[in-house]
Amino acid sequence: MNFGDAHRDAPAADPAAVAGVDLAAATAGLKASGRSDVALVRLAAGTQTAAVFTRNAFCAAPVRLARSHLAAAGARLLLINSGCANAGTGTAGEADALAACERAAGALALDPRSVLPFSTGVIGQRLALKRLYAGIDRAATQLAGDGWQAAAEAIRTTDTVPKTASRRVALSGGTITVTGMAKGSGMIRPDMATMLGFVATDAALDASEVDGLLREAVDRSFHCITVDGDTSTNDAVTLSATGASGVPLGDSADREHLDEAITAVCIELAQAIVRDAEGATRFAEIAVAGGRDEDECRRVAFTVAHSPLVKTALFGGDPNWGRILAAIGRAGVGDLDIAGVDIALGDLPVVAGGQPRADYDEARAAQIMGEDDVRIAIALGRGSASARVWTSDLSYEYVRINADYRT
Amino acid sequence: MNFGDAHRDAPAADPAAVAGVDLAAATAGLKASGRSDVALVRLAAGTQTAAVFTRNAFCAAPVRLARSHLAAAGARLLLINSGCANAGTGTAGEADALAACERAAGALALDPRSVLPFSTGVIGQRLALKRLYAGIDRAATQLAGDGWQAAAEAIRTTDTVPKTASRRVALSGGTITVTGMAKGSGMIRPDMATMLGFVATDAALDASEVDGLLREAVDRSFHCITVDGDTSTNDAVTLSATGASGVPLGDSADREHLDEAITAVCIELAQAIVRDAEGATRFAEIAVAGGRDEDECRRVAFTVAHSPLVKTALFGGDPNWGRILAAIGRAGVGDLDIAGVDIALGDLPVVAGGQPRADYDEARAAQIMGEDDVRIAIALGRGSASARVWTSDLSYEYVRINADYRT
Repeated sequence: MNFGDAHRDAPAADPAAVAGVDLAAATAGLKASGRSDVALVRLAAGTQTAAVFTRNAFCAAPVRLARSHLAAAGARLLLINSGCANAGTGTAGEADALAACERAAGALALDPRSVLPFSTGVIGQRLALKRLYAGIDRAATQLAGDGWQAAAEAIRTTDTVPKTASRRVALSGGTITVTGMAKGSGMIRPDMATMLGFVATDAALDASEVDGLLREAVDRSFHCITVDGDTSTNDAVTLSATGASGVPLGDSADREHLDEAITAVCIELAQAIVRDAEGATRFAEIAVAGGRDEDECRRVAFTVAHSPLVKTALFGGDPNWGRILAAIGRAGVGDLDIAGVDIALGDLPVVAGGQPRADYDEARAAQIMGEDDVRIAIALGRGSASARVWTSDLSYEYVRINADYRT
Repeated sequence: MNFGDAHRDAPAADPAAVAGVDLAAATAGLKASGRSDVALVRLAAGTQTAAVFTRNAFCAAPVRLARSHLAAAGARLLLINSGCANAGTGTAGEADALAACERAAGALALDPRSVLPFSTGVIGQRLALKRLYAGIDRAATQLAGDGWQAAAEAIRTTDTVPKTASRRVALSGGTITVTGMAKGSGMIRPDMATMLGFVATDAALDASEVDGLLREAVDRSFHCITVDGDTSTNDAVTLSATGASGVPLGDSADREHLDEAITAVCIELAQAIVRDAEGATRFAEIAVAGGRDEDECRRVAFTVAHSPLVKTALFGGDPNWGRILAAIGRAGVGDLDIAGVDIALGDLPVVAGGQPRADYDEARAAQIMGEDDVRIAIALGRGSASARVWTSDLSYEYVRINADYRT
């Protein structure tokens, strides 16, 4: 099965350059592994950038600074480091983040307020500024349009693969490109301060277009994934439109096509995060239909996706519809009539009207739950709204990674 | 450490009889293991019973029937079976539950509506009525005041130990007894339709006193435990007051003492469930203070207790305060200032004002997180309300039990 739809055939190993965006990576020595850990993304003058940040009240210093810089001066440079989240570091951490921005701004002759800092890695440790400075200086000399892959490598923490995605879209005024990169494995693992996504396009968009397109895409991608229900202190996704193609949104069809492309890039990146989730052995889509509104569909989908009992059943390849029904029942949907609920595993109807179907084929259901990609479809039977989320199973390996990480 | 307070020294292996309550158990053959699986609890005429049932919309046939019987005719008999939850069985399941009540009522010359049915075990299977009838008939001939231990054995599913608790309380009019039994391991595992609790006292109480005392006790005990955040289709807790002691509540001090005793019995049973949780290697108390109201304290406590990252850190004995802070930050407390949050592990202050303390002793913290009982104390610094919940860690064994259960 393939939940990424037709766009999944886009080349991910060789992300397309975006006019107006130059990238570079360097090894500053912030990671014990000795892998690259600093990435710079330079954006052409006039680029419009929008961002979505973590809603966690315990947000890290770079998140607070990036938010205020973006509001004050837009963005000319994204400065990303892995290895250290600079979270739980108080006012000293804010000073460190600002110092890093100033260093990068100095190297590239930019306003320090136009540098947005992003950090991912261990919580509660100060940035090793001297090392970071050296990494920034080196990367600043190597910026190039084909640097996406190197940058995607440098922002990894426990990710087992770098994550990039590209689309080319024909608009009425010409063809534009959308490329993005992301990191995250475990949505979300606070130690590694997980989910970061950076998407860019050379389309010519105004600030409100960029903002609207980002929010719509994130709602249908990064906000639809969960591994363990934890959200990080450092999460952020940005969308930058450089305008370098000179192609604006000519009409509403253009907007729709661009929306589709940006959403497809975000879905591909978001699904890549779930597929790379800590200890994941299976990828699952939870699709809920027949709700009164999207909100209740999402609530049901996330309750099922977060249920440790459903997740361990997924790991065990056990078509345990009783656990799914019980999760639906406790999702807090007002006056839900469980006698109206249907469940299918893949294309196999399993539960009808809150009870197992007379023709329920458990052997076939077990086969479906044993596949790499599993789709659980739930019909609430009370409306026409729908929602879907993507998640992974709960395995021994998840427990091992998270129990042993700091030892 | 001992979170059960001074009452923990009460004898659990030999629960005290309660005047007006007779119990018996039998082996009907509903469990593959061949262990006892039917329990009867006969209550003297005039007994006042209150019950708290699962809030899961997907509730089982016996839950619906017990609720309607209790409202119609009070309770003279509790009929409990393990091995089969009679959930997801539709109208046929309701007919089965009613038939079981009628059989028990016939055997003991009672109104069928005064029989409350409770079932726990596998979801989605019909009750084997013929076997159950034979078990009911046998148990009905063996009712006795000292049957608590046998009944507690019979209501077990995956519980590794039977769970009972007793208190004797001197009221102004004489001494009364409170005894309870419970089953549950994993709060809540829908397959095994988990949590059942039955508490009785020989105090002479009216209906509103029984109802009020039960709700207060449950709020401070069974509603404060979580293993995996799942709630079952069959959960129920009852409190029956037989009045056989002839001792009423003479004054408000009496009510307070009885309240304390019933709550202590419920806390002991609730904590026994967490200690017996599937795969649990550690018991943890999450105590939240300094909130604006109890509700936000509970929300923070449960968010921390449900976090797979905190639970795996507990399993690993990792004093990972960053994960605790991140869970607090996403608990949905309005305008929470993370800079006002303190955290202690056991008696060791770890985080002050949202940051690790300068004198933070990680070696000592790791020692505390490695103990059998761990206390995580959180101060929100914005009010005077508090709440506490009890939970277990997330281990390999939890994954194994829940991934392999049906195979």
